[in-house]
Amino acid sequence: MLKIAIIGVGTVGSSVANILKENKEIITARAGRELVPTIGVVNNLNKKRDVSIELTDDIEKVLNDDSIDIIVELMGGVEKPYEVVKKALEKGKAVVTANKALLAYHRYELEEIAKDIPFEYEAAVAGGIPIINALREGLTANNIQSIQGIMNGTCNYMLTKMIDEGVEYETILKEAQDLGYAEADPTFDVGGFDAAHKLLILGSIAYGIDAKPEDILIEGIENITSYDIEFAKEFNYSIKLLGIAKREDDNIELRVHPAFVPKNQMIAKVDGVMNGISVIGDKVGETMYYGPGAGGDATASAVIANIVDIARRGKGSPMLGFERSYGNKLSLQNKKEIKTKYYLRLEVADKTGVLAKVASILGECGISIEKMLQKPLGNQKSNLLLSTHSSVEKDILKAIEELENTKVVTQKPAMIRIED
Amino acid sequence: MLKIAIIGVGTVGSSVANILKENKEIITARAGRELVPTIGVVNNLNKKRDVSIELTDDIEKVLNDDSIDIIVELMGGVEKPYEVVKKALEKGKAVVTANKALLAYHRYELEEIAKDIPFEYEAAVAGGIPIINALREGLTANNIQSIQGIMNGTCNYMLTKMIDEGVEYETILKEAQDLGYAEADPTFDVGGFDAAHKLLILGSIAYGIDAKPEDILIEGIENITSYDIEFAKEFNYSIKLLGIAKREDDNIELRVHPAFVPKNQMIAKVDGVMNGISVIGDKVGETMYYGPGAGGDATASAVIANIVDIARRGKGSPMLGFERSYGNKLSLQNKKEIKTKYYLRLEVADKTGVLAKVASILGECGISIEKMLQKPLGNQKSNLLLSTHSSVEKDILKAIEELENTKVVTQKPAMIRIED
Ligand SMILES: NC(=O)c1ccc[n+]([C@@H]2O[C@H](COP(=O)([O-])OP(=O)(O)OC[C@H]3O[C@@H](n4cnc5c(N)ncnc54)[C@H](OP(=O)(O)O)[C@@H]3O)[C@@H](O)[C@H]2O)c1
Ligand SMILES: NC(=O)c1ccc[n+]([C@@H]2O[C@H](COP(=O)([O-])OP(=O)(O)OC[C@H]3O[C@@H](n4cnc5c(N)ncnc54)[C@H](OP(=O)(O)O)[C@@H]3O)[C@@H](O)[C@H]2O)c1
Repeated sequence: MLKIAIIGVGTVGSSVANILKENKEIITARAGRELVPTIGVVNNLNKKRDVSIELTDDIEKVLNDDSIDIIVELMGGVEKPYEVVKKALEKGKAVVTANKALLAYHRYELEEIAKDIPFEYEAAVAGGIPIINALREGLTANNIQSIQGIMNGTCNYMLTKMIDEGVEYETILKEAQDLGYAEADPTFDVGGFDAAHKLLILGSIAYGIDAKPEDILIEGIENITSYDIEFAKEFNYSIKLLGIAKREDDNIELRVHPAFVPKNQMIAKVDGVMNGISVIGDKVGETMYYGPGAGGDATASAVIANIVDIARRGKGSPMLGFERSYGNKLSLQNKKEIKTKYYLRLEVADKTGVLAKVASILGECGISIEKMLQKPLGNQKSNLLLSTHSSVEKDILKAIEELENTKVVTQKPAMIRIED
Repeated sequence: MLKIAIIGVGTVGSSVANILKENKEIITARAGRELVPTIGVVNNLNKKRDVSIELTDDIEKVLNDDSIDIIVELMGGVEKPYEVVKKALEKGKAVVTANKALLAYHRYELEEIAKDIPFEYEAAVAGGIPIINALREGLTANNIQSIQGIMNGTCNYMLTKMIDEGVEYETILKEAQDLGYAEADPTFDVGGFDAAHKLLILGSIAYGIDAKPEDILIEGIENITSYDIEFAKEFNYSIKLLGIAKREDDNIELRVHPAFVPKNQMIAKVDGVMNGISVIGDKVGETMYYGPGAGGDATASAVIANIVDIARRGKGSPMLGFERSYGNKLSLQNKKEIKTKYYLRLEVADKTGVLAKVASILGECGISIEKMLQKPLGNQKSNLLLSTHSSVEKDILKAIEELENTKVVTQKPAMIRIED
């Protein structure tokens, strides 16, 4: 029998407690022993909850209880859970968490502290999809060439609706908030920060590379308009918020941003609130993992998988996928050196010479145009929607600056990256 | 350092030897020690091969060599590899295999023999996709409700071509043979037997259920015609050869057959030689796993993942997913009691009363029609293409017999199951 304390009995924590009870028979057969949720920790003992586990608001007492084998951290936040998890590991208790923010900032310190104590976090990336397992164990024969992930269900739901039903950003954001998919302050999701936390974790397992959110390129979906959708439809793209980890020689690109993705790629077929992660390995080729990225039960499914693993074998594979350092031969690519294809939306005046001027500015920056759509806006203005051949980020940024400075455009240009 | 012998240095075996060399640096970092392919066993020492491993044709010598830690069985077949693997396990050597036929027949005996010796087989199902890992570790919190898998790339390639390009079965079979996707005797693939072997393995991990190929329903893709494709297009279906494991109360359906699948399901989007497996768990909902199901390097990727796991931790999770018996509360559903929706293709004479007769025979068997297409064939004959509401297999079989006996049809009716 293993005794489990659940620190944080909210959406995910209460699902963990309930599933351990409901599916006790099959879980016990799989784990080889009984997994008993013994105590839950919450902030507010007076809140009504749908769980039968005993509750306390005294974290310290639980951490000091020698009869507890596993601490499941589901409270959220960064510094407080870091303290809690650190203390638990130092006391030799196994830890399971779903907390991507904690790991985005402290995964390497925690790896140091944990050493041979099991520390697992399958639910922290893409909720119920066992992607950590796949990357940490299933694909170990490969040099990972790239990971492209739809790792935020809220954004994917919104983008799917914008594309399929032509709904505008503001309208669909309000709907997502009403449905409970988006928070009152949605910045964390729509700004790409949640996806970035997950990407950093995957980047560590694939490449052994240490980076913090502030080190990488993060852009959200806030500026996508129906013109961009039109361009996507015209040229058979879908638009997805992607977390991308990519190796070019010994440089690792880590970036989160909306991207045009060819419609026939599997990742482009991941719609609605679902998550999907495509991984390309040098030997296996592409594998893709699809499923629910959030929700109490789906997330708890991954948390409990970790508990079962610990019950079966204690510490399994190395926490961040490497037994020995490998990442120090790889380095994080500078944001400005990223290379991809770009889409630009330029509002211009309807007069002769404007297109020539745009083309010449792009040309001077070393950028060549691949496809273009011109859409009249009325008011003697047009939108020029264009895509480029593969270019370097700093050249695009320079071109955008030039376009603004020389007043060829009548509004700040919009840019979206293209991944194909 | 771990010493590895590769028994069978053909398509997969030579990829294993080569990748262990080419990707040695990252594999060593991940495994924590060097994995050294020491000796390979083949039938014919004179064959030219593209590997640098030392070769022998003396299996016994290799099995008796105490310096070898891991035996990798990649020779194919059933009884000979069974002997080899048994002997290796009895000598305390860890075993990795990609051999689905071996496991379809002997997995429970091998589990008995292996006990605490690592015995791994990730590559046996869906090649490079880590589906064994997902099911055995990632989804342990769940009662699995169903598994639907496209697990034979040859069939999926052929069906995709038939649907996308309207190519007839015989033509595309020849093309698949020319491309090396299908064997000279293609029965094993197109008849559904290869998929059945894989399904039996998944059925064990999901449900702990013991069954042999001869116990389950296996149908191939040989009888699919352009009429069936037309019906699929009309009603927004794709046609896939599926391996299905499904729980209804305490009965487990295991079956392999072509099926109409609604086009908007993720599994319907798996095209060409690729494999895809959709798993529905009672807590996590649907997750889907996509990737290459065959090919030397892709399969070797999974074989090496198993070797790395063994290097890291010896025996990992229980071989067939359960530490303690669970399956004996579940039983295999009789083939005749399977419940699903059905499609019938009936060739009938173009005369009044025929449709009424068909409908009345179906009605008497308790079957109600959902959708229908009538297609004139010339010659005063027509094809009636129809789908039913959910029915029981034995009722459909009875209706088909009746239709033949009463000569309402002018040719043996064709039947395809519908999964939606
Ligand atoms: N929800 C999802 O779908 C999902 C998916 C993947 C990962 N995650 C991650 O899982 C974690 C939990 O998410 P959630 O949605 O379950 O959050 P939640 O519903 O807000 O629950 C948080 C729980 O922690 C308790 N708590 C917070 N601070 C505490 C403190 N200082 N002391 C004691 N208890 C404290 C809260 O107590 P009260 O109930 O008394 O307020 C509450 O029970 C987060 O790290 C999140 O990122 C969530
Ligand atoms: N190919 C794939 O894409 C794939 C995918 C998934 C799983 N698998 C499985 O992997 C296994 C190997 O497949 P494969 O395609 O690599 O087969 P293969 O190319 O036919 O290679 C078989 C190898 O085993 C050797 N061999 C056979 N019987 C032997 C014996 N009695 N003694 C010594 N050596 C013997 C052969 O020797 P010679 O070379 O001298 O003839 C050959 O090197 C099979 O179980 C298969 O089902 C294959």
